[in-house]
Amino acid sequence: MDEGLQAISPPPLAGQAELFPPPFTGEGRVGASAPEDIHMFVEQQLIEKIGALGGKLHTGRSRNDQVVVDERLYVKSVGAQLVAGILALESALVTRAREQLDTIMPGYTHTQRAQPVLLAHHLLAYVEMLRRDGDRLHDAVGRADVSPLGAGALAGSGFPIDREALARDLGFATASANSLDAVADRDFILELISACSIVMIHLSRLCGEIVLWTSAEFSFASLPDSLASGSSMMPNKKNPCAAELVRAKSGRVAGDLMNLLMVLKGLPLAYNRDLQEDKEALFDAVDTTQACLEVTARLVEGIQFDQEKMRGAALAGYTLATEAADYLSRKGVPFRDAHRVVGQIVARAIKAHRGIEDLSLDELRQFSSLFDADVFDHLTLEGALRSRDVLGGTAPVRVREALANVKT
Amino acid sequence: MDEGLQAISPPPLAGQAELFPPPFTGEGRVGASAPEDIHMFVEQQLIEKIGALGGKLHTGRSRNDQVVVDERLYVKSVGAQLVAGILALESALVTRAREQLDTIMPGYTHTQRAQPVLLAHHLLAYVEMLRRDGDRLHDAVGRADVSPLGAGALAGSGFPIDREALARDLGFATASANSLDAVADRDFILELISACSIVMIHLSRLCGEIVLWTSAEFSFASLPDSLASGSSMMPNKKNPCAAELVRAKSGRVAGDLMNLLMVLKGLPLAYNRDLQEDKEALFDAVDTTQACLEVTARLVEGIQFDQEKMRGAALAGYTLATEAADYLSRKGVPFRDAHRVVGQIVARAIKAHRGIEDLSLDELRQFSSLFDADVFDHLTLEGALRSRDVLGGTAPVRVREALANVKT
Amino acid sequence: MDEGLQAISPPPLAGQAELFPPPFTGEGRVGASAPEDIHMFVEQQLIEKIGALGGKLHTGRSRNDQVVVDERLYVKSVGAQLVAGILALESALVTRAREQLDTIMPGYTHTQRAQPVLLAHHLLAYVEMLRRDGDRLHDAVGRADVSPLGAGALAGSGFPIDREALARDLGFATASANSLDAVADRDFILELISACSIVMIHLSRLCGEIVLWTSAEFSFASLPDSLASGSSMMPNKKNPCAAELVRAKSGRVAGDLMNLLMVLKGLPLAYNRDLQEDKEALFDAVDTTQACLEVTARLVEGIQFDQEKMRGAALAGYTLATEAADYLSRKGVPFRDAHRVVGQIVARAIKAHRGIEDLSLDELRQFSSLFDADVFDHLTLEGALRSRDVLGGTAPVRVREALANVKT
Amino acid sequence: MDEGLQAISPPPLAGQAELFPPPFTGEGRVGASAPEDIHMFVEQQLIEKIGALGGKLHTGRSRNDQVVVDERLYVKSVGAQLVAGILALESALVTRAREQLDTIMPGYTHTQRAQPVLLAHHLLAYVEMLRRDGDRLHDAVGRADVSPLGAGALAGSGFPIDREALARDLGFATASANSLDAVADRDFILELISACSIVMIHLSRLCGEIVLWTSAEFSFASLPDSLASGSSMMPNKKNPCAAELVRAKSGRVAGDLMNLLMVLKGLPLAYNRDLQEDKEALFDAVDTTQACLEVTARLVEGIQFDQEKMRGAALAGYTLATEAADYLSRKGVPFRDAHRVVGQIVARAIKAHRGIEDLSLDELRQFSSLFDADVFDHLTLEGALRSRDVLGGTAPVRVREALANVKT
Repeated sequence: MDEGLQAISPPPLAGQAELFPPPFTGEGRVGASAPEDIHMFVEQQLIEKIGALGGKLHTGRSRNDQVVVDERLYVKSVGAQLVAGILALESALVTRAREQLDTIMPGYTHTQRAQPVLLAHHLLAYVEMLRRDGDRLHDAVGRADVSPLGAGALAGSGFPIDREALARDLGFATASANSLDAVADRDFILELISACSIVMIHLSRLCGEIVLWTSAEFSFASLPDSLASGSSMMPNKKNPCAAELVRAKSGRVAGDLMNLLMVLKGLPLAYNRDLQEDKEALFDAVDTTQACLEVTARLVEGIQFDQEKMRGAALAGYTLATEAADYLSRKGVPFRDAHRVVGQIVARAIKAHRGIEDLSLDELRQFSSLFDADVFDHLTLEGALRSRDVLGGTAPVRVREALANVKT
Repeated sequence: MDEGLQAISPPPLAGQAELFPPPFTGEGRVGASAPEDIHMFVEQQLIEKIGALGGKLHTGRSRNDQVVVDERLYVKSVGAQLVAGILALESALVTRAREQLDTIMPGYTHTQRAQPVLLAHHLLAYVEMLRRDGDRLHDAVGRADVSPLGAGALAGSGFPIDREALARDLGFATASANSLDAVADRDFILELISACSIVMIHLSRLCGEIVLWTSAEFSFASLPDSLASGSSMMPNKKNPCAAELVRAKSGRVAGDLMNLLMVLKGLPLAYNRDLQEDKEALFDAVDTTQACLEVTARLVEGIQFDQEKMRGAALAGYTLATEAADYLSRKGVPFRDAHRVVGQIVARAIKAHRGIEDLSLDELRQFSSLFDADVFDHLTLEGALRSRDVLGGTAPVRVREALANVKT
Repeated sequence: MDEGLQAISPPPLAGQAELFPPPFTGEGRVGASAPEDIHMFVEQQLIEKIGALGGKLHTGRSRNDQVVVDERLYVKSVGAQLVAGILALESALVTRAREQLDTIMPGYTHTQRAQPVLLAHHLLAYVEMLRRDGDRLHDAVGRADVSPLGAGALAGSGFPIDREALARDLGFATASANSLDAVADRDFILELISACSIVMIHLSRLCGEIVLWTSAEFSFASLPDSLASGSSMMPNKKNPCAAELVRAKSGRVAGDLMNLLMVLKGLPLAYNRDLQEDKEALFDAVDTTQACLEVTARLVEGIQFDQEKMRGAALAGYTLATEAADYLSRKGVPFRDAHRVVGQIVARAIKAHRGIEDLSLDELRQFSSLFDADVFDHLTLEGALRSRDVLGGTAPVRVREALANVKT
Repeated sequence: MDEGLQAISPPPLAGQAELFPPPFTGEGRVGASAPEDIHMFVEQQLIEKIGALGGKLHTGRSRNDQVVVDERLYVKSVGAQLVAGILALESALVTRAREQLDTIMPGYTHTQRAQPVLLAHHLLAYVEMLRRDGDRLHDAVGRADVSPLGAGALAGSGFPIDREALARDLGFATASANSLDAVADRDFILELISACSIVMIHLSRLCGEIVLWTSAEFSFASLPDSLASGSSMMPNKKNPCAAELVRAKSGRVAGDLMNLLMVLKGLPLAYNRDLQEDKEALFDAVDTTQACLEVTARLVEGIQFDQEKMRGAALAGYTLATEAADYLSRKGVPFRDAHRVVGQIVARAIKAHRGIEDLSLDELRQFSSLFDADVFDHLTLEGALRSRDVLGGTAPVRVREALANVKT
């Protein structure tokens, strides 16, 4: 957060002080011992320095438009930082994908091994998600890039202000078109938190996978000591705490979203004090998402993959069955029939505790005379990968192509 | 919060420090410069004071059971405080109800004036809600009143601890029956936050009414200067900011609930680091609800009712039409017919810009010959109130009865 | 919904049938009496018509990519319909704004009368909100406009499909770049529901205002009989039920959003059956938002404004105080001092039960010698409106300008 | 649902019909072609059968109190059914626990193997959670068991009804104490949905574990064909769809909760049409929870455990390290030191690719001279289990005790 924004750092948690602003005196409250808010504080400081002239600071302004100016500047600033955080995580994923171009792992559906994929392909799936996240944040910032200054308390300033010049001076793309809307709505904050919620869902999935992969059962990867923590009771444990926390914090940002949706529900125009509650939800969602992006990037950078374990798992579990079905389909068998035939082969292989790739051609031909020797070219991990040679498929040539297209 | 609980005050917002606990060293981390958490800190302090013997502190304990002990003690403590806060608000409402026993206001449905009610009756409606809130909190605390100490990390302590004696010493009603459940579940926190959410819904409705009542349009009440705040732009304004903030903060507690539900979703047994995220949701929900209970009590104590405005509003708007329909029903007219007849009377009165109580007996008899002179006893605010003489009704005798039954 | 999409209409509510798909037989399930899902049903129908050849239908496809194709087509289709619904409501608002260009009402902050505004200006505030809603939906549809077909079950099709040609044929802008992402993510649905949630927040505010405005206390407007409903008990009541229901249904769409966020949290790649739960949330959010847009448009079209009541309310409540303060400011008085002076004037006027516009020049000059006769030009509703002559302000000239800029 | 309750089955999804009730005619609407709601429909039917006398049906009643009567009867009825569903699932878990009393599995923290536990102990953890769920539902039903009949539209009936006798006749425990509260609040529904949400969190965790356990990586269990489903693309797959759907549906019930919280937020007393939206949230939460309880019970009944795989996993991963540390502690070594020593032993064992139980006594004594031959009694799965001999611990004697205490 740059210096100018520290003024709008989060207020203290719900205390009575916050709930009861200094009482109404009918006189203005600048002379009071404690200024009512940041706007009054700034004015008070100015008056102390330059005298009564400082009282002109508020001319043509209202706290109602000022607070939204601050929030919009904040959203623009942190929006850019969030996009940078997303790019950094994309970059970490791409770096690891480039490095793991030969690593084969099982692709899953229903947490069941399904078909072999490249680890690089798996990592790039998250790059796609993050790219859309970046776009969403960019769009949210674009819609926030509107200056409400000069909207006054609600009806427009009573001074002949050039609101568009003011907007330009403050770095906004444009000035708002309706003063009531300018001070009453907070949809630009809802949109940012909503985009953050979706980012967090993506991170929760990636970090959830890190938790699975580093389990003894999967053993696909391990975390360096610097990214794991131990147990006070069990000296042998290395716990993926950071990944667990990122996963959990998706709930926190979703909670922030729910909070603000509920705050805004049913409020009449224009400004209501309820809107003050937008700040903690916003700050918390942004801080949490930023921290989680950084932490996830460090996890991605540091995680150590066990290529052998991944390859072994990719081979086990009849993940090549689809290849056999596709083989028959390419020879003209209706897919549904091919599917049934291969189902019978798999059943036989399971009974014999063998892989289908371990069956002989004669054995395969007992199920379909269309099997020829070349079927074994397909019944290998490399053959299976190669066959997924469509745009976006996991064929190595396609994954290399995807990596070449990455702009980071 | 009493002193012993300050140790579990909320951690800082999502920073990386929190996300990455001190790295795993394979040696235990007490010697490290910064202790990993509060448990380690206490142990470290003890070791500094009494030497190696302090290292025995952790015997038979795990951070996994300790943290839930702390949280359950906290829930018991703040649960009692919340119940006290509820009772204080009930008491404020009852005090005002006693004082306003003669104040008649319009009762509303669909924010439309419907029938006259006593202001005391309206205030007591909230007392009923709060009573159930207190019961819910009481039940939640009851279910939390179980000691997990001795559950160990997950499997039960390896030392022959008398867990029931420990539970008694700590003031718990009983000890938990399953070690995995003891360290893995947080339903007692969900239940507390859920009960707080319902409290906040009730407060949002009461404070929403305060906002309406103090509007120029309703003018049923005003807030003393000490409970309102002014506008920097419009020196004439007195804003019900505290009521607006309470209304808004219902979103915050609902957000805390959503947060923790999402955190817990789908987690395998037993302890996962995700559970660390329960604390901020819990603390925030409790602090917010406590503050809002106090603030609402002050609003209820301080609000000044305008009996004349209320009475005037109660008379306007044909709120006595139901009395006319009930009159006919009591004389044997099927309700549906009585309803139609009175609808016609109201239509006539509206056209003539008169109240139905202002029509003459002759005029009324044009619609039904069953009207007699005694109908006018019913077509008054007092008559209307009197006729609602059932348990829980707004008849003054019933409201007095309800007040007499209040235990505060 | 166009015909092709009826196939993906909502499944029945959570029954066991849905939870337990037809059992795994190891043979494929087309021969079974009841087809497992819509994909199987289509294939079965085809086989019945054209024989075994129909079994080729599934070649190069998987239910995992097919279902997302359907959902993306649905999102594109209903996204366009939602945008149309938004435009229709904008149009209704603009029509009423054009018609009410001379109607003055009090603008509110904190539900307290603050400054006079034009009703047209108030209605146009909602047009601004809806415009952003339309943009958000447009962006959401844009990100959904990507064909997943050919992604296969997860790894990419095993047939040399031209996925970009397929995408073009289906009317998609492009084809997805990663097969795992294509079948595993549902962020395009989250984004649509999120945009719908924000629409619903805006509608809840507008309909909440309709409820207030049609109350006896406000009496700013009334609903024609066709848009209100009566009471079985109180024949005199006209209830704004439709407005209340729209306000309430904002909770429903927010609930749908929360539902899907929680469903997706922490799921490993790629497809999981959990994703099936996306449909009811999506359909419900879309159906609800569409219905509410239509209903709100009818309410806006039909509501009858009471210009006199609005004008009367705008005058009452010292809404011209700001004008007096601005007057002094324009004469060089620091705003904070002008504010204090006018506060004193208002206090005096309140005590005398007069408006500040009813004070004489002499009386005003007791507070500041800078008041001249021209101050009374400002102390009128028209003068107050005129003075808000900035971009987006409520000055009639500015509101006309805004209406001229409307593109509908 | 018993017959009398079918009348309040869920209305159709948000259509305009629902949003616009038959228009206000000023005459009552019974004569209209389509009755406005179920109450009018019943009355109309009665009038058709017995003539005008049927119009008396509504005497002393209002739709506002009637609808809450129906909802409270519904909550009482389905609350009992939900408790029965919970008991059935508890019973299934207990049956499997009894049968698996000798099955040892790894207990997990952070999804990392931590210490051996009995499978029965793990299953009983869920019984504890469900027991609390049952209690919560019981409490919710208790608070709902209050008759609002006679509260009228809002102010109490105008007829001298014996509300307590009516309550008794309808099977309610008592009659409500305040008429405004009776028709305006829905906290009894919030409480039920909230209790359902917590049930669903518990089910999401159990079903999430079923998904993990039936994965190739864990292989702790498999589902019979009747409880799994296949893949159209990969004939070898058996997918735990039902478990995935239960896990997902936790989001749905949480969404229902969020929905109703938001609906109720900030509503003024008494009845508002917004309250109509409580029904779908309620029905959906109840139906979903009931179905998920039944489905989970069938999964628990049918799942086939692989005792060997579980035992093998329990042994691997240094899960006995804690035993070694506890051994030293019991000999007087401060826990923190014991912890460090065992950490060094584990490090050595990892380097040597051996279990710590495979180290010789001499090797162990290099780390601490306190190790004696009896340490090996502890360094077995059975020894480890035995040592957790505290209330709620996983020692077989304790688990048998827990099973004996089960009341089902």
